[in-house]
Amino acid sequence: MDESDADFSTVKQHAADNDTLVQLKTDEYLLPGFIDLHVHAPQWPNAGVALDQPLNEWLDTYTFPLEAKYQDTAFAKRVYDDLVAELIGNGTTTALYFGTTHNPANSELAMACITHHQRGFIGKVAMDNPDQTPEYYRDASAQSAVADTESFIQQLTELNQTADIKQTPVITPRFVPSCTPESLKGLGELAKKYDLPVQSHCSESDWENGYALEHYHMRDAEVLDQYGLLTDKSVMAHGTLLNQSDLDTFKDRGVAIAHCPISNVYFGNAVLPVSKLLHQDVKVGLGTDLSGGYSPSLYQNIRQAVISSRMLHDGVNAELSPEERGTDNQPISAKNGFYLATVGGAKSLHLKTGQIKAGYLADLQVVKSPLRAFEDENMETVFEKIMYHASKSDIKRVYVQGTQAK
Amino acid sequence: MDESDADFSTVKQHAADNDTLVQLKTDEYLLPGFIDLHVHAPQWPNAGVALDQPLNEWLDTYTFPLEAKYQDTAFAKRVYDDLVAELIGNGTTTALYFGTTHNPANSELAMACITHHQRGFIGKVAMDNPDQTPEYYRDASAQSAVADTESFIQQLTELNQTADIKQTPVITPRFVPSCTPESLKGLGELAKKYDLPVQSHCSESDWENGYALEHYHMRDAEVLDQYGLLTDKSVMAHGTLLNQSDLDTFKDRGVAIAHCPISNVYFGNAVLPVSKLLHQDVKVGLGTDLSGGYSPSLYQNIRQAVISSRMLHDGVNAELSPEERGTDNQPISAKNGFYLATVGGAKSLHLKTGQIKAGYLADLQVVKSPLRAFEDENMETVFEKIMYHASKSDIKRVYVQGTQAK
Ligand SMILES: [Zn+2]
Ligand SMILES: [Zn+2]
Repeated sequence: MDESDADFSTVKQHAADNDTLVQLKTDEYLLPGFIDLHVHAPQWPNAGVALDQPLNEWLDTYTFPLEAKYQDTAFAKRVYDDLVAELIGNGTTTALYFGTTHNPANSELAMACITHHQRGFIGKVAMDNPDQTPEYYRDASAQSAVADTESFIQQLTELNQTADIKQTPVITPRFVPSCTPESLKGLGELAKKYDLPVQSHCSESDWENGYALEHYHMRDAEVLDQYGLLTDKSVMAHGTLLNQSDLDTFKDRGVAIAHCPISNVYFGNAVLPVSKLLHQDVKVGLGTDLSGGYSPSLYQNIRQAVISSRMLHDGVNAELSPEERGTDNQPISAKNGFYLATVGGAKSLHLKTGQIKAGYLADLQVVKSPLRAFEDENMETVFEKIMYHASKSDIKRVYVQGTQAK
Repeated sequence: MDESDADFSTVKQHAADNDTLVQLKTDEYLLPGFIDLHVHAPQWPNAGVALDQPLNEWLDTYTFPLEAKYQDTAFAKRVYDDLVAELIGNGTTTALYFGTTHNPANSELAMACITHHQRGFIGKVAMDNPDQTPEYYRDASAQSAVADTESFIQQLTELNQTADIKQTPVITPRFVPSCTPESLKGLGELAKKYDLPVQSHCSESDWENGYALEHYHMRDAEVLDQYGLLTDKSVMAHGTLLNQSDLDTFKDRGVAIAHCPISNVYFGNAVLPVSKLLHQDVKVGLGTDLSGGYSPSLYQNIRQAVISSRMLHDGVNAELSPEERGTDNQPISAKNGFYLATVGGAKSLHLKTGQIKAGYLADLQVVKSPLRAFEDENMETVFEKIMYHASKSDIKRVYVQGTQAK
């Protein structure tokens, strides 16, 4: 018996004495909890709805009217409580959230995270450009967008006083089109003043990518960068249409990309070349993008990340010869997808989580093997079956910072 | 109260009197059962395994060695019992199965279907070409491939004597490469003699599509057609690389395509243009293609069918301009996907099922709305949420021909 065996035996005895010993069944496995880098919390009631609408219709008819309802704090409380429980139920121990413009609702989201023991990164959404936002749902001015963001930072500081799992405020310009240059500037200054994370969307679609070119005569990434919004603590959703110069900027500044493969199918107009980004050491994690993406499960997004990468490699159009049809972007594996949902997300948020390792946060999920085994299976097979088949009902227990959350 | 109300009230009273009245809860919905047009039953233990291997490696290292194990009838019984229960659990009331070359195992599959009240269409796989099949797993000769197929037809006829849900034998040349011209010819004659359904693969991938061109100097569909294997009762898996002339033949003969969108991502090299086929009135249904596709759920395949169709429309390669990137193939909707899994499958197998309608078979699933509703939801929203979110645990009850199967 070596020293680590002795340590383990002491720990085990201690747990048994205190009635806190948990023993996994033979078909249960311990995995790191997942990190979801992109969730629009208020859009949860619309998950799976109207996805065949074009983006502008989807925003104007479905999304903005729904987000405007969070002026009703009681409605916010009902939805956020359900959403956070659902994400925890799916093994997501940390989530990076867009809220709405309404701070009382945003505080409800933070309280839901505290109640369900989830580590939330939460942003009051800033959107003050009258040309690109409806009158019934926008910040009154650039000044109020920035001031409300600052007061939300203070609200979270207060809430955290008594919280076991701390919640982090995030500077959140919705995206370049919905903000004025004044609000972008003010938000960049706030990010610096409080040394806080930043989240937004960058080069998501042909339309969004084109907006900055038309209105700023610059690339989307350049606009964000000039206002100090691309930092080592920034997480940009999608990036489907980033070019090499954008990627160089991302790598240089330490900006992470929230890859949202399901959402990209509906609104991204192309596939993010994940293997290329990983080779270039650009930070990448995984996001559900509820409700641009329909699924609250990062398992489903791991599968779609693999699938989309294969389709980018093979191509899709049978009318072309194989050589013309495909690209040289290598497909990613289920392991790569798992990396994005764990280590990739943790690096993006500067968290010591996503790995089961001494000195790391005990963010964990206990997953039952989803399919019956008919013979002995090696760990490779067990892992692949979990990645390809696990659904919420297979996730038996979830821990955040050692506290049981499910 | 009109006549139909009076009828309903009598039926309801009768059911209540006999203790067979089932009342749905307010969040439960009655849907037609699904028809899975393509399942390799013996591959179930490998669902989700080794999908990043190239097709030949996947066949030689994973699939053929596994299928060869069904010489062990006890092993077959264990696997098939679990598989059929899993498919029923996912709402699949009819399935079109490839078995293996082993008739005792194929009979176990039929018995599993009878036990779990599933309507099975089951084929003894014929594969006698020594150039394309391993020595340890092939029919000894063209004659024995055909003779064993005929004796399986007789075995099923006997099993059906005492079965509530009848099982149908299917003529099953694995695919053109694995058969000799002699076995293809013999199987075509059997299909005609017994007026039976036929299943195979057709133009699945660049490799398979190329095989017929190289060895027969004909298209894959032409080879099958010349041996009488393309009939109004034929279901061909994948068809990813069919050209317009093949499609014209399919339409002319009444051949159906089993669209397997998840499998195609791994082995199909392109996306089947489903909206084009529906416009041309070619029959199309949906298949899981276990284990080329990892998921036993047709819900997951409905989602991937929608997703793949969107990616075919938008294109995948961000380095191209939107005009060069996309195609004019229109995306399909969740409703179209649902059509494939119900009406499309039923038409392909000439069954009066897939619709809830007088005179149709009572193949049904009771599905609980998977997500909490925060406001009144219209039927469109309820439908979309079920299509995008339902998993096995949401499928509360399943009926086949009126008999409860789950
Ligand atoms: Zn988003
Ligand atoms: Zn197949």
